[in-house]
Amino acid sequence: MKYFEDFVVGEEFECGAYEVTADEIVAFARQYDPQPFHLDQAAADASVFGGLTASGFHTVAMQGALINASPEADAAIVAGLGWDEVRFAHPVWAGDTLSVRFTCLEVRASASKPDRGVVRTSVVLRNQDGQDVLSSVHNLLLKRRPTTPEV
Amino acid sequence: MKYFEDFVVGEEFECGAYEVTADEIVAFARQYDPQPFHLDQAAADASVFGGLTASGFHTVAMQGALINASPEADAAIVAGLGWDEVRFAHPVWAGDTLSVRFTCLEVRASASKPDRGVVRTSVVLRNQDGQDVLSSVHNLLLKRRPTTPEV
Repeated sequence: MKYFEDFVVGEEFECGAYEVTADEIVAFARQYDPQPFHLDQAAADASVFGGLTASGFHTVAMQGALINASPEADAAIVAGLGWDEVRFAHPVWAGDTLSVRFTCLEVRASASKPDRGVVRTSVVLRNQDGQDVLSSVHNLLLKRRPTTPEV
Repeated sequence: MKYFEDFVVGEEFECGAYEVTADEIVAFARQYDPQPFHLDQAAADASVFGGLTASGFHTVAMQGALINASPEADAAIVAGLGWDEVRFAHPVWAGDTLSVRFTCLEVRASASKPDRGVVRTSVVLRNQDGQDVLSSVHNLLLKRRPTTPEV
C-alpha cells in the first residue's frame, strides 16, 4: 500500500495492456455517447476519423481500468479531487492495445489536515505504436503513513 | 444542427434527468474502476463516503450521456479536443437524478482553417438537491456554417 510519502516527484512507471475491441467501443457508445462514428462501421469510415474509434468518454474509462490494474492504484486514496488538461491527442481504434505511463509531478502535504496530502500525477495513455492517445493530470488526496499502527 | 456561429458567449441552458441506479454503479465499477466502495454496499458504508457512490470515471460517462441527450449535442462537432478543470465536487449516490448545465465561455474562429472554430463550454452536473457534483470545461472543434449548401 502506497501512502503520500511514497510518491516522489519525477518518478515514472508504465504498465498495462488494454485491448480495445469493436464490440466494447459500440457497447460503451450505445450507453453513454451514441455518435454514429462510434456505433457504426460505415458511418465511422465516412467520418473524419476514417474508421471505428472509441468515444473520448470511453477512452477515459479505459484509462480508469488501466490505472486500477497498476500498482499505482494500490494507494491510500481518500478521494480523487479532479483532472486537469485532459487532451485527446490521437484517435483510439478498434484493435489498439493501450498502456499507461504515470509521472509524479508534485506532492503537497495538507496544511490543515496533518494526516493527508495531495499528489499531482501525469497520466498518459499510449497505443501499441507509441503514440499518445490521451493525456491528463490527476489530483489525488492520499493518506499520510500512520505514525502508529492503524487499529 | 448548431454550427460554430450559433454559440454565443454567456448563453446558458440546462437539461436532462439521468437516474443513477446502484446496479449501474456496480456494473460500471466492475469493468472500469473496481474499488470496494463502488462495488459493495458494506464496504461503501464503511468508506469516507458512507454509502454507495459512483466512480468518478462513471460520473464522467453519465455526463456524456446527458450531453448526448441535449440539444447541445446536435452540433457540427469535428472533434472533442479536451477538458480542463474537471472537478468532482460532491459524491454521486445511488438514487440521485442528475441534470447538466452548459454555459458558453469562449468562441474562437480558427486562424489556419477558415471552415472551423473552437468553442469552450462550462459543463456542470447537478443532483436533485441542486448540488454540483461534477464541473469541467469542454473544448470543442466545430464546423462553421457553410456559405454554400453542402452536397
